[in-house]
Parts: sequence; C-alpha cells; structure tokens
Amino acid sequence: MKKWEIAVIPGDGIGKEVVPAALDVLKTVADVHGGISFSFTEFPWSCDYYMEHGKMMPDDGLETLRNFDAIFLGAVGNPKFVPDHISLWGLLLKIRREFEQVINIRPAKYFRGLSSPLTEPRDFDFIVVRENSEGEYSEVGGRIHRGEDEIAIQNAVFTRKGTERAMRYAFELARKRKRHVTSATKSNGIFHTMPFWDEVFADVKRDYPDVATASYHIDALAAFFVTRPHTFDVVVASNLFGDILTDLGGAIMGSIGIAPAANINVNGKYPSMFEPVHGSAPDIYGKGIANPIGQIWTAKLMLDHFGEEELGALLLQTIEDVTADGIKTPDLGGTATTKEVTEEICRRLRKRG
Amino acid sequence: MKKWEIAVIPGDGIGKEVVPAALDVLKTVADVHGGISFSFTEFPWSCDYYMEHGKMMPDDGLETLRNFDAIFLGAVGNPKFVPDHISLWGLLLKIRREFEQVINIRPAKYFRGLSSPLTEPRDFDFIVVRENSEGEYSEVGGRIHRGEDEIAIQNAVFTRKGTERAMRYAFELARKRKRHVTSATKSNGIFHTMPFWDEVFADVKRDYPDVATASYHIDALAAFFVTRPHTFDVVVASNLFGDILTDLGGAIMGSIGIAPAANINVNGKYPSMFEPVHGSAPDIYGKGIANPIGQIWTAKLMLDHFGEEELGALLLQTIEDVTADGIKTPDLGGTATTKEVTEEICRRLRKRG
Ligand SMILES: CC(C)[C@H](C(=O)O)[C@@H](O)C(=O)O
Ligand SMILES: CC(C)[C@H](C(=O)O)[C@@H](O)C(=O)O
Repeated sequence: MKKWEIAVIPGDGIGKEVVPAALDVLKTVADVHGGISFSFTEFPWSCDYYMEHGKMMPDDGLETLRNFDAIFLGAVGNPKFVPDHISLWGLLLKIRREFEQVINIRPAKYFRGLSSPLTEPRDFDFIVVRENSEGEYSEVGGRIHRGEDEIAIQNAVFTRKGTERAMRYAFELARKRKRHVTSATKSNGIFHTMPFWDEVFADVKRDYPDVATASYHIDALAAFFVTRPHTFDVVVASNLFGDILTDLGGAIMGSIGIAPAANINVNGKYPSMFEPVHGSAPDIYGKGIANPIGQIWTAKLMLDHFGEEELGALLLQTIEDVTADGIKTPDLGGTATTKEVTEEICRRLRKRG
Repeated sequence: MKKWEIAVIPGDGIGKEVVPAALDVLKTVADVHGGISFSFTEFPWSCDYYMEHGKMMPDDGLETLRNFDAIFLGAVGNPKFVPDHISLWGLLLKIRREFEQVINIRPAKYFRGLSSPLTEPRDFDFIVVRENSEGEYSEVGGRIHRGEDEIAIQNAVFTRKGTERAMRYAFELARKRKRHVTSATKSNGIFHTMPFWDEVFADVKRDYPDVATASYHIDALAAFFVTRPHTFDVVVASNLFGDILTDLGGAIMGSIGIAPAANINVNGKYPSMFEPVHGSAPDIYGKGIANPIGQIWTAKLMLDHFGEEELGALLLQTIEDVTADGIKTPDLGGTATTKEVTEEICRRLRKRG
C-alpha cells in the first residue's frame, strides 16, 4: 500500500479552517478505501510566522518541503499586517517558482446545487491551464527617482520554453477531453510578448491537428466566460491572464470558495502543490463558516495527481451531492458551518464505502 | 451657435456600419436642437488603407487630425489581413498616445430592455476610469535569441504622474457621483508596479477625505463585476486592467455591442477621441445587423464632452427607450437591423423635439 507523505501548510485566515476540514476528508477516503494512506506533516508558515520571525518560512523551508510527495496549502496573506507582495513572494510564489511548478491547473464546472450568477450557465466544464513560472509575475524590474518623478517598471518575461510547455500541456489535456484549446492572448495591446505568445501557439498547434483551437484577446475572453462559458474546453493562459480567468471561473460557478487548483511540477524533481483559488479571507476567518469545498475539491486534484482518479471522481461526486442536497455554507446561500459540510461529506464517503 | 468640427474615422468592419448610423443620430440631434451643429470630415484610415498604402494612415495623419474638436472613431482591426499589433499601434493606440488621451472613460449600467446574463444585475451603474497612456501597453521591450531559446520581454511602465493623474480624475468624477472609488490592483502578484500603484492610491486618497474607497486585486475584482456589480461607482484601473474590466462591463450589460468609451485629452492640447469598446467584428460585417448602440452612446459621451450634458442625457434616454421597446439588433435578442434601430432613435428624437 502506497503511503503518501504530504506537507501541509494551512497558512493564513480561513486556510486554517478549511485545511483541517479537507484533511478530515482525505483521512476518511483512506479509511474507507484500503489501497491508500497518507501521512500529514504540518508547517505553521504564514503571516503569523512572519510577524514572529521576520520571514514567511525558515531558511531551510524549501529543503524541508522538498522530499514530500506533495504540498497541501490553504491560503496565504494577511494584508493588514504584512504587505501581500512580501507574504506571497516569501511563500506561495516562492514555492511555485523554486519547485518549478510551471503549470497551474484550474477546473471550473457547472456545479449541482450552486446558484450560478448567470441566467444561462448551461453545463459548462472547462479547465484553465495557467503558465505558472514566468510571464507577468516576475521579480525583474524596479523603480527610479522619487516623489513626483518616480517610475516603476515591471518586466513580463516570456520564454519559448515556458510558453510552449504550458501550451503542450493544454493540448495533451485536451486530447483526454473534448479536443479543444482556446488561447488567451492580447496581441493587439501588449506589444512584445503577446504577438510572441501567438506565434508559439501557432507552432504548437501544428503538432495537434486533431485538436481544434480558438484564440481570443483576454478582454473578449473574460466577457465570453460570462456570456458563453459552455463553449470552452481547455483554455491556456499566461500567469496573469490565467489568474484573472480562474477567479471568473469561480464566480460563474457560484462562488470563488469552491474553485480548486494544482501547481504541477512536470519534471518530477520537486513536489507539486495543491491550493484552492480563493484567498485567506481575513474578514470571515474565525467564524466557522468558511466554505471548505475549494480545499476539498483541491484534495481531489491531489488524488488525481497520485493516479487515484477513481477516488478523485468519487470525491467530487460526493461534494456535488452534498451541495445539491442543500448542505452548504452561507456564501452559497446555505446555513451550514464548515464543520457540518465536512462531516456530511465524510459521512457519505463512509456510507458509500 | 457653436459648430463642432469632427474628424470621423469609421475604420474597419462594423465600424463602417455603426459610424454612419451614429452620425445620422448626431445630425438629427443638431436638426432638432437649435443650439448646436456639427461638421463631419471623414478619413478612410483602416486596414484597407494599410493594404493599399502600407501604413494605417498617411504620414501627416496626426497633423491633419490635430485641429479638429474631436475624433469620432468606429473600430480598428482586420486580423485576417493585418496583424493586430500593426493595425492598432499604427492608428488607434497611436492616436491615444500621441494626442495625450491619457484617460479612458467607460461607463456601464443596467440598461432597460437588455437581458443581462446575470440573474441579479440590480441597478448597477459605474464608470471605469482607465489609465490610457502607459502601463502594460508600451513599446518598451523586445526579443532575444531565436528558436527554442527565444525570450520576449514586455515592460510595463508606470509613472507617478500618469498614475496619479488617472486616480485624481477618478476621485473628481466620484465627487459628481456617489463618492466612491475602487482601485484595481494586483500588488500580490505583480511585484514592482502594483505595490507602486497602491502607494500612489493611498497618497491621492488622502486629498479626498469625502470619497470612500476600496481596493481589490484584479482577479477578485473581475469576479465582483459578475457577483455584485451594483456595489461599484467609479473604478480606477491601469491600461490593461481597465481594458479587461470594461469588456466585462459590456458583458454584464447584456452585450459588448452597447458599451461606449471616450479617450480624453486632459491638457487641452489635442482633440479627444470617442470610440466604442467593441471591436470591428469582421465576422458579422456587411450583414447590416451590427448593433449601433455602442457607437451612439459614444456620441452621447462626445456631447457631454462638448458641455451638452442635457442633450447627452436625452440621447441616452432615447436609446434606452428604443431598446426597452424591443427594437434591437440580433445580438440583443431582437430582429431589427442597424438601420431600423437608428431610424427609430432618430424618429423619437424628432418627435420629442
Ligand atoms: C483594440 C485594442 C488595442 C483595444 C485595447 O486593448 O485598448 C481595445 O480592446 C479597447 O479596449 O479599446
Ligand atoms: C495570491 C496571489 C499571488 C495568487 C496569484 O495571483 O497567483 C492568487 O491570486 C492565485 O490565483 O493563486
């Protein structure tokens, strides 16, 4: 029996509520199904940790994480006390970058039991493949002058390698799905990198004649996520565009609180990291009403990653059943607590056996 | 009686259909209301022009436009024949940049007679103030290496002056409205420029203690445009974020085809330019079914700019009445042609007198 060693970083805010919930679910999955077991090791790295130690994680933090099979993360950020660019670049973005988690996978689908804010959501079901290692998120740049003459420059850096890798991942994924890839571009406004993005897309698609494609500027595409989300299958996007599109994906599902994500290391050198799309939501932290579904669906992506796709599918179906039966947190229009939703999911997993 | 000299650039695709429609409406406004008149001078600058002359406009194009009171533009782009970054940077973006049209104003509101794709659009009514001169849209950057080692770099350049100017414009505008400004940021991911953006926002807001503020990361904000658009009044955003948010604004209204925009020169040195948010839509061009409302609402923004706010308000009300009465193009679920919508608007303007 394979025992998966998992590093757990609840992080900040509601991360500290929804991560334990998702661990309960994973433990239940392991209890019920003989073939799998987990060992969880928790790390308190977070903004609280920063306030005590002046850094988001210890100097050997990455070294420590490196030997785990996966990292299971809640949310990072507490902007009242630590500026976001410090907390994120000191932990979340650092791990994504240093562990070469070059692909970020973010599914969105019409979810039974949720009220989508769209009048006609149809049965949408797409996955955004987000380039996760470069692009607009870069430390390259800086400032010059002070006061009224100050200038800040941000370099977006797109490599052929990184761009092509994300696109190939998207095409491969599309082959397991509906064989359609949409490219998120902005070659009409972003002068240097987006025409480059388009060229690489044209090159890569030549290798996948069996996959249909479309290409839209990010402004139009964001609008299409609202007006016709059911027309997408796999969407490949840069780091920033993927970030924006996936929050929109969460919104049209009915809550950002349910959107899951996986940061995938594709070369096998480092662990992958699983973390939901939502943030730490300091405003609702501590009330016991945080929606655990994003984190639990994220656990499903981790199961898939471990090759346990059947268990993953079962878990997703259970979450949807529970939601469809109205057992949901206030953000979804329900009255259940984090704990009640979690227990109901575990109960049904046990019952199903 | 003031005679306004207007340079008209229909541009490409449906621009050539909706601009004449909007001119008919403006002529009717002038006919009916004694105090105003227009002189229109048309320029054929477009992708067609490019294919004939190898450039989007003549070398002295800007010199020619410079002495007009305003530029009224349709849409630019025909990517099948001219790459977008050529056509746009050769005309639309060039005019915005060279004529120091540093602010882009884009209203969005719940529009009577439209079916918003949102189940609960409420009575939303906001204006996005988009920084229009710098930021992510820059010619600074380039490429190095070829083939598999190729790298493309895009510099986003934010100056204190440009950033502050957009923000002050937003705060001044908010004072004439509901006294609320939302800042679109991404200081948790975009390392250099967005923390700078936040600092400038904090500085500027100190001068407007009577205006309430909020600040959201672009990913969350895009989602909020879908989940609670009625909570926004004025939104200030960078060039790219403003671009994305305003297409979303169009989407939640029920059609990108109705969203208007104004590119404002604030120092009085050059004309301002009025152009709708939508593009040239080559796929529907020539069918006579393009929605003229974006262009006509844009004409209303031009009237406002000329100080004719009352006429502007009357025009907007007339458009809404016609839409509410079901006289609308297919993109809005109607069966009317461009011409029928336009004629009905003119007829009612005349009747109202
Ligand atoms: C055509 C394109 C360059 C332009 C932009 O991105 O500014 C358009 O999308 C707009 O919003 O006016
Ligand atoms: C917290 C932030 C840096 C992060 C991002 O922008 O990548 C988040 O929005 C996400 O999508 O995971």
